[in-house]
Amino acid sequence: MDLFAKLKTNMGPLGKHSEFADGYWSFPKLEGEIAPRMKFKGKEVLTWSLNNYLGLANHPEVRKADADAAAKWGAAYPMGARMMSGQTNLHEHLEDELAAFVGKEKSYLLNYGYQGIMSVIDAILNRNDVVVYDSECHACIIDALRMHLGKRYVFPHNDIESCEKQLERATKLASETGGGILVITEGVFGMTGDQGKLREICELKKKFEFRLLVDDAHGFGTMGETGAGTGEEQGIQDQIDLYFSTFAKSMASIGAFIAGDADVILYLRYNMRSQIFAKSLPMLLVEGALKRLELLRSKPELKDDLWKIVHALRKGLHENGFSTGKSNSPVTPVVLNGTVGEAAALSMDLRENYGIFCSVVIYPVVPKGMIILRLIPTAVHTLSDVDETVKAFAAVKDKLASGIYKNSELALSFGE
Amino acid sequence: MDLFAKLKTNMGPLGKHSEFADGYWSFPKLEGEIAPRMKFKGKEVLTWSLNNYLGLANHPEVRKADADAAAKWGAAYPMGARMMSGQTNLHEHLEDELAAFVGKEKSYLLNYGYQGIMSVIDAILNRNDVVVYDSECHACIIDALRMHLGKRYVFPHNDIESCEKQLERATKLASETGGGILVITEGVFGMTGDQGKLREICELKKKFEFRLLVDDAHGFGTMGETGAGTGEEQGIQDQIDLYFSTFAKSMASIGAFIAGDADVILYLRYNMRSQIFAKSLPMLLVEGALKRLELLRSKPELKDDLWKIVHALRKGLHENGFSTGKSNSPVTPVVLNGTVGEAAALSMDLRENYGIFCSVVIYPVVPKGMIILRLIPTAVHTLSDVDETVKAFAAVKDKLASGIYKNSELALSFGE
Repeated sequence: MDLFAKLKTNMGPLGKHSEFADGYWSFPKLEGEIAPRMKFKGKEVLTWSLNNYLGLANHPEVRKADADAAAKWGAAYPMGARMMSGQTNLHEHLEDELAAFVGKEKSYLLNYGYQGIMSVIDAILNRNDVVVYDSECHACIIDALRMHLGKRYVFPHNDIESCEKQLERATKLASETGGGILVITEGVFGMTGDQGKLREICELKKKFEFRLLVDDAHGFGTMGETGAGTGEEQGIQDQIDLYFSTFAKSMASIGAFIAGDADVILYLRYNMRSQIFAKSLPMLLVEGALKRLELLRSKPELKDDLWKIVHALRKGLHENGFSTGKSNSPVTPVVLNGTVGEAAALSMDLRENYGIFCSVVIYPVVPKGMIILRLIPTAVHTLSDVDETVKAFAAVKDKLASGIYKNSELALSFGE
Repeated sequence: MDLFAKLKTNMGPLGKHSEFADGYWSFPKLEGEIAPRMKFKGKEVLTWSLNNYLGLANHPEVRKADADAAAKWGAAYPMGARMMSGQTNLHEHLEDELAAFVGKEKSYLLNYGYQGIMSVIDAILNRNDVVVYDSECHACIIDALRMHLGKRYVFPHNDIESCEKQLERATKLASETGGGILVITEGVFGMTGDQGKLREICELKKKFEFRLLVDDAHGFGTMGETGAGTGEEQGIQDQIDLYFSTFAKSMASIGAFIAGDADVILYLRYNMRSQIFAKSLPMLLVEGALKRLELLRSKPELKDDLWKIVHALRKGLHENGFSTGKSNSPVTPVVLNGTVGEAAALSMDLRENYGIFCSVVIYPVVPKGMIILRLIPTAVHTLSDVDETVKAFAAVKDKLASGIYKNSELALSFGE
């Protein structure tokens, strides 16, 4: 059979609505500088869908650093993989700064977060090792585990009792294979906004021997007294054996890093396939990250401003009868019940008539019948943005309850 | 057992010499603007280790485009994955330009080549599908296949007879599973410099039903009449079903693209995990890639200059009794016999006393007893650079034959 035949008849769970959704619900274009107010299809919208937590994307010092770095280095330097010809003093300097910031001995830059964490996991595991991981870990972690030849045990999201049971099974198996155990979870879960139960997992270190890898993509810069992340927030940063974050959220860039004990980081430096066999993080991004990290350290008001918006938004939503699930981080999911068609009609109403742009999460990402409007507050939103949004949400909630969306032409076209 | 215990006792094949090699053979720092003459440990060296084939890294128009783009957009824009909030008109425009350049209906940008091609392969395969691939495919392809739940058959590098046998086995198996067949090879193999036998593989389409994916990382911009790659060079570009290239070589940047028929690219757009769940290629790199592509098209003299250097270097090396293996691309491997210790002494001599910097490939990347000095000629090298290099190579070759390196303190310290 032709390999491509199946692709043409089955576009996949997200692709099947492509003709209808493309350019509006999927692949929308947000134009203008990154800020709460951007343009969507020519009209200004109040945007809650960018992971620009600290507002650094368009911070004047960041913009100047990015521009100066590009003028100085271009986008090409350095060329080649770190190990071959892509090493620089500034890469090492940024690594020292990051390690100090998250309280680890060493860190190592990764040319991209997705492939970077895949290679971290791949490099430290062999087929005798056993993995225990949270069921809602990000796609990049799942892809890494798909390469793992040994056993893996999943526990339902944040279910510590089940985690302990899986650790029991893992310990038994590892004692037979002679391998070790890696537990993987996230600092903040990006869809639901609840923190991983890191403290509870670390408690289990008293009963079981394992190492803990935490993907803190959404927690780095936003959580903890100093912004050092969810481990700091929960008081167990020193018990995280490998701390990972991307630069794609609060750092408003690309690239990532892994931090831990010096000997483990040295090992990783020589054994991560996507880092040995692909190009170094460009210097202009390294210089940009140094500036961003400097601002994280020197301007705690950025994080304070973020949390002011988070708290105000949460309060307003709760006062209007909305649930934000179990979120205890800036990620603010607004959970509603409705069909995919209703979700489309509601979010279109929000965009067209209330000027509010947010991401809509539907089946198959969440169960059928659930709609999540996912809001990402940032330090550069205002309390008046919050008011405007809460009012709009209250209005569309009433409409949803009235059945207007269900009977809209748009929802009916879904035939649900 | 502690998961990390094994890392501390076994640093891996490349890491085991880390204490000795770090900063010199591994993770060397090349300083200054990207050019044939750069600084290594404070001294100027003539460099042959950067994949800057067309000299674009430091081309004034490229440098200006990169600087202007960073000033205009910063490094953050757009934020979010393409599908969520990372789509722009310029991304689509670059995709149209790339598709036209390589003669395909559509193309799609990838936020990084390594994870990008992994997700291309992952998205089009299910467990019923069968893969047939060249044994020397790049690490990113191997990592993709490690996620594949179906069968894969490898054929020895460029062995078409064996490829045909594997296609026979694959066809038999696929008829049982109801799956399709994907053949994967490269346009130019980056270590040895020989082209994949694309024409011969395409001939096999007359006997077998399969789709062909070509990773043309080293061929894009360097091979073929117009620089459209190795498929153009061999006259079978139209028979490549999925054409992939990174921007990390002749384009002197990061990012990548995949090109093919419109319906397949649309499917990929909605189903590549590393693209759905990770950030869009930054706009400054999109603008930079547009400028680079414009230069590829408007300045064929860049490719002519590259090949002038390739031919001169090849001629000089051959006249001095060197083998460059089966290379028929710009990648120029100089194959010598010697131990790892001799390789170290020879390359140190080249760097310290002849001012020539090139990458040295040793066991386990190549068989024991083989040393490959890998030279990457570029459009910005000069004929006088070539002369200087050939003379230095002739000198160290004589020294190698004389046993000086074998008896050097450095080689002896390896204890081989």
